[in-house]
Amino acid sequence: MLIARVIGTLVSTQKEPTIEGLRLLVCQPLNAEGEKVGAAVIAADAVGAGVGEVILFATGSSARQTVATQNRPVDAVVMAIVDHWEVAGKTKYRKSDD
Amino acid sequence: MLIARVIGTLVSTQKEPTIEGLRLLVCQPLNAEGEKVGAAVIAADAVGAGVGEVILFATGSSARQTVATQNRPVDAVVMAIVDHWEVAGKTKYRKSDD
Amino acid sequence: MLIARVIGTLVSTQKEPTIEGLRLLVCQPLNAEGEKVGAAVIAADAVGAGVGEVILFATGSSARQTVATQNRPVDAVVMAIVDHWEVAGKTKYRKSDD
Amino acid sequence: MLIARVIGTLVSTQKEPTIEGLRLLVCQPLNAEGEKVGAAVIAADAVGAGVGEVILFATGSSARQTVATQNRPVDAVVMAIVDHWEVAGKTKYRKSDD
Amino acid sequence: MLIARVIGTLVSTQKEPTIEGLRLLVCQPLNAEGEKVGAAVIAADAVGAGVGEVILFATGSSARQTVATQNRPVDAVVMAIVDHWEVAGKTKYRKSDD
Repeated sequence: MLIARVIGTLVSTQKEPTIEGLRLLVCQPLNAEGEKVGAAVIAADAVGAGVGEVILFATGSSARQTVATQNRPVDAVVMAIVDHWEVAGKTKYRKSDD
Repeated sequence: MLIARVIGTLVSTQKEPTIEGLRLLVCQPLNAEGEKVGAAVIAADAVGAGVGEVILFATGSSARQTVATQNRPVDAVVMAIVDHWEVAGKTKYRKSDD
Repeated sequence: MLIARVIGTLVSTQKEPTIEGLRLLVCQPLNAEGEKVGAAVIAADAVGAGVGEVILFATGSSARQTVATQNRPVDAVVMAIVDHWEVAGKTKYRKSDD
Repeated sequence: MLIARVIGTLVSTQKEPTIEGLRLLVCQPLNAEGEKVGAAVIAADAVGAGVGEVILFATGSSARQTVATQNRPVDAVVMAIVDHWEVAGKTKYRKSDD
Repeated sequence: MLIARVIGTLVSTQKEPTIEGLRLLVCQPLNAEGEKVGAAVIAADAVGAGVGEVILFATGSSARQTVATQNRPVDAVVMAIVDHWEVAGKTKYRKSDD
């Protein structure tokens, strides 16, 4: 999985019927220091994540292992909201400080 | 999924029988600012997208989760046409303004 | 899928029994302008492609969705020979001109 | 698989119910010389790896082939702790020297 | 698939029980000219490849399509030893000359 910040939302009316009702989030991947890395990915939301939150997303067939995304043409899913992470004993992010 | 603009079409006569009838679109991936990023991908069309439109495409096994692409040797599918997306409260793209 | 030119062939005697009989092609990916991009990939041939031809190849589990490659440890397959593609109304490649 | 060093841990309370109980590790990929390469990946732990240890992780659908991760939206798993590796007859890493 | 040279071996004692007995090879990917490209990958051996040999490896779910790797958390497998390949009619590698 990759850490990312939800930076926005995307809306589509004309789409595969099976993805009806899925929220689509614009996710900016972050490295372990919390810095932006690479281009944004659009992921389906499986956990009720909001804009501004730091989340984990899974890609590939693993993105279809949630109730929200099963058997749907979705290759990225937000499957966790991050509380905190630490590297070498130092907290790099804490949701309550965000 | 990645955002992309459909910039062209591709035609093949000699091909796997199972992909007969699929429209193949030349898709230029875009970042969250709507700028080109990376090389073009050829994706099968599952939603009737046209050249010039901004779309979402899914890759990998997820690209086979549409009626059009099921059990076919296709690793990228256009599964939604984008209406609009916004980042940090600012609209970055709106189809009606395009 | 990615566009590529078949630039060569590869031969292996000692291999997984299940890939016996598969032709292995050296494929150089191309961007939408027809320029080389990235390193060569070795793909199994499912359509009778020859050296010099411009083709499409699919990767991942989708590469096993052909009669030639089913249930085999193959992660890239040539599944179409390209006739032509165009970008923004201009032909970028036409097989008959190649 | 890629070699990585476990450099930290990540905690999430609000998440897909199916990933309840999984330990999430911050993994920094290493090249064959043991040098850092690319951004950190968050992987589920299937072998009881600790912070500071050098491990192997698998990605994609292969990440779901452990008891800990089966049918879960997890795209990276730590599936081995590295004892040692060598390149061209020279030991590049040995756990007991770490 | 990608061409690679087996440059070393890796040993792990504490690991997922299902990968017991698999040989793990350090593989350096090569481009069509035989030059190193990208970081090393650790692949399971399905063909009895030795250090120094030039091989093909497959990744993703395709890496589990061998007897040695079926249903195991393995995302890369050596599935062929390369005899020779040629590009534009010129031999780029021949095992007997190696």
